[in-house]
Amino acid sequence: MSQPTHVCHHSETYDEPRGEMVPIDLSSAPVHPPNAKAHANGVNGHNKLNGVNGTNGANGHAAPPMKSPAKQFNPYAPRYADFLSNVSNFNIIESTLREGEQFANAFFDTETKIKIAKALDAFGVEYIELTSPAASEQSRADCEAICKLGLRAKILTHIRCHMDDARIAVETGVDGVDVVIGTSSFLREFSHGKDMAYITRTAIEVIEFVKSKGIEVRFSSEDSFRSDLVDLLSIYQTVDKIGVNRVGIADTVGCANPRQVYDLVRTLRGVVSCDIEIHLHNDTGCAIANAFCALEAGATHIDTSVLGIGERVGITPLGGLIACLYAANPEYVKAKYNLPALRELENLVAEAVEVSVPFCNPITGYCAFTHKAGIHAKAILNNPSTYEILKPEDFGLTRYVSIGHRLTGWNAVKSRVEQLQLKLTDDQIKDVTAKIKELADVRTQSMEDVDTLLRVYHSGVESGELELGQRHILDRLLEKHRSQSQERVSAAA
Amino acid sequence: MSQPTHVCHHSETYDEPRGEMVPIDLSSAPVHPPNAKAHANGVNGHNKLNGVNGTNGANGHAAPPMKSPAKQFNPYAPRYADFLSNVSNFNIIESTLREGEQFANAFFDTETKIKIAKALDAFGVEYIELTSPAASEQSRADCEAICKLGLRAKILTHIRCHMDDARIAVETGVDGVDVVIGTSSFLREFSHGKDMAYITRTAIEVIEFVKSKGIEVRFSSEDSFRSDLVDLLSIYQTVDKIGVNRVGIADTVGCANPRQVYDLVRTLRGVVSCDIEIHLHNDTGCAIANAFCALEAGATHIDTSVLGIGERVGITPLGGLIACLYAANPEYVKAKYNLPALRELENLVAEAVEVSVPFCNPITGYCAFTHKAGIHAKAILNNPSTYEILKPEDFGLTRYVSIGHRLTGWNAVKSRVEQLQLKLTDDQIKDVTAKIKELADVRTQSMEDVDTLLRVYHSGVESGELELGQRHILDRLLEKHRSQSQERVSAAA
Repeated sequence: MSQPTHVCHHSETYDEPRGEMVPIDLSSAPVHPPNAKAHANGVNGHNKLNGVNGTNGANGHAAPPMKSPAKQFNPYAPRYADFLSNVSNFNIIESTLREGEQFANAFFDTETKIKIAKALDAFGVEYIELTSPAASEQSRADCEAICKLGLRAKILTHIRCHMDDARIAVETGVDGVDVVIGTSSFLREFSHGKDMAYITRTAIEVIEFVKSKGIEVRFSSEDSFRSDLVDLLSIYQTVDKIGVNRVGIADTVGCANPRQVYDLVRTLRGVVSCDIEIHLHNDTGCAIANAFCALEAGATHIDTSVLGIGERVGITPLGGLIACLYAANPEYVKAKYNLPALRELENLVAEAVEVSVPFCNPITGYCAFTHKAGIHAKAILNNPSTYEILKPEDFGLTRYVSIGHRLTGWNAVKSRVEQLQLKLTDDQIKDVTAKIKELADVRTQSMEDVDTLLRVYHSGVESGELELGQRHILDRLLEKHRSQSQERVSAAA
Repeated sequence: MSQPTHVCHHSETYDEPRGEMVPIDLSSAPVHPPNAKAHANGVNGHNKLNGVNGTNGANGHAAPPMKSPAKQFNPYAPRYADFLSNVSNFNIIESTLREGEQFANAFFDTETKIKIAKALDAFGVEYIELTSPAASEQSRADCEAICKLGLRAKILTHIRCHMDDARIAVETGVDGVDVVIGTSSFLREFSHGKDMAYITRTAIEVIEFVKSKGIEVRFSSEDSFRSDLVDLLSIYQTVDKIGVNRVGIADTVGCANPRQVYDLVRTLRGVVSCDIEIHLHNDTGCAIANAFCALEAGATHIDTSVLGIGERVGITPLGGLIACLYAANPEYVKAKYNLPALRELENLVAEAVEVSVPFCNPITGYCAFTHKAGIHAKAILNNPSTYEILKPEDFGLTRYVSIGHRLTGWNAVKSRVEQLQLKLTDDQIKDVTAKIKELADVRTQSMEDVDTLLRVYHSGVESGELELGQRHILDRLLEKHRSQSQERVSAAA
């Protein structure tokens, strides 16, 4: 393994941290049963709910695998089934090419759109949502081009609740149309200025028109969490009765909290029999958790975008949602999506919109699997599950333990000593760890620094020059090593 | 206002986007009542709960202001009080200088630690938590130095549940000690190897020792969500009875979801009378939402770090939590913290650990207040609350509306026309908007591009050369303008 001396923090695409880190051999991690097992029959009776959840599964391009016996692999999953929950039975509506196009930095040319659509399809999302063909000439042409790619994912476009837009949309060849209108009094007053009677009339006209073309149609309110609940449930019940495939709830301003989302979705679940989609903005950082709660309450479809790009700070990020759902049911998520493709997908979009993948991004943040504190390092080396709910190897990534810092512990150092095949007792390792901490109090030590110290300590012990606690002798040996290295460098120059 | 032609996406500290954006005059936004009003008596009876919540408020360095009559200012707040909820009555335990030091990139020298501590204090956090003085010599010296700064915030340090650590900690001059031990079977087996009887015995010894020194003490389990519930409640009840100030729940691996957090905190709230602190990792992106649910369930103290830095992808970020709590009760949060100082605090820490503030960061993400979609822009210009749950002016920030892109709408363009004091009819504005969309289908247009187009269109109309829909004449006028500009540039060169 190459060992550069420091982490490059500012490259466009982060590398994993190396420097002072110990890469951990993943082959010792507990082995997963093969994915095929995820298709075994569910054990929690949830499958019986398909009727209640309307067309879920039938709408997707492929029926999702049956619920896996999650308890078998995840000892911390809930012990009893929650019959409303779709945490192990959902579809993703990926909106990087619609909501994501509304991100301040986004400008996707046709070639980029096609690349992103193909990468999303390779990852395995069930739906890809595109900007309305009514937005501009090029938007229409791009929508038609993507429909012709023959992807596995179904292609949707997203339009205002208006017959003009609907007519243009159905001509593009999409598999479905997502219709939206603002229903909050705020939007009714300050945006379109229409009343609920007008909204209902138009909604029915547009839905019946789209359905007459034999493709899917969703009806969604905008700003649902600031809409009158009675208005909202009333229009959803109406469109459900005329056969809409899905109704959507949108937290357009990002104001909802998890319990509000749970409550609203749960209430709606009791009112309509069709599928329920949820679209959540991330202004207060709750979009992933809100999506999870929506699934728990019976939602069937979650809107995402890659890295969460969208209006303002964006919406539920695809990768973060995957992390959250993987934590709940790893086997189901692994069977459903090509997880090692996530990183490349995120890099593709990050490059297209000229942002960096955030350091704190779930899964692919460049230190998401780096462990630093001494007590963490010890436990991780014994059993990675102690401090990890996500297995890096499932995402094609690697775990690191950082040891050259003042919070380090002797167990992490011991692991490195073993990797270097040096023979030291535990007491000797504790002794040299104290020296690492002393040096790291002044400056974080690179892997080379740590390795040099370990080798010098080891040779001092081997030669009988060094015993436990003899810091001054260790200092002298280190000094001697450094001057010899310097001479070698000078001689070579 | 200066108008550079594009947004610098890769600078260390993002500037607000300008380029094709229209800055919106904030003076027209609804005016807030003065902060003083936030100190008026609460209307929801929550204050009566102080007894139930143990020492909350008394523990903090200043009693938090009374609950504000939130309904008066936030029409979308819950209509009825939730008697358990502390969403409008909480303390922040800011752990950038403890948890944050465990972030892969972090190395804080004494000067940096002091700068960060002062900035946190200026922002107004109630507690600052520091790395254990047992971690290293320098950690001890830094802890003592920060205790001597005379900050308003109380200073805590965080130690293992061990008498050696406790003895060192109480000598540093801290206002309190946060004691932690792993209680999950995972950690008991693979980390410290101790049983619950040993944990309980040691906890009592350490707590009584720290209390004998007249300072605060908190006892927290580690990995609480994977611990045996009966063990957990049993030890919390024990330490509550001997007079611990706070008990802590930690989602050490970031596996908890919002409803689990709510349920565990709520259960614990019924078992102990002391304060309840929560510490949440962000591996699945749920840390902010989980913190909010913990407060709803009766937690009193939330752990944060600036930008969320910590082990792996970190913990609940201070700024994100503020966004979430501000959305719930803006007056309370504004009265409690110096919100315009947030951005500088985040920049300080970002620089210290060499990361960029993520583009998707709540509040300070560089496009958090940028609106792009046409229908959004129209509504925002009518009333910002249509698409914003956070008021940028409360954070010393500015709102932008992006218009030079193919999703633009004529209402946003009209706003710019008015700012430039050009006289155009609505039909003329729609006509020139179509041209902007046509140009932006090829390349996003900068503010200068848009302004030039608007001025040329306007002068064409004024001179009588141009009428509605005469694209070819507009193209000719634009071409003429460009060649004249070019001549002027050449002449000046």
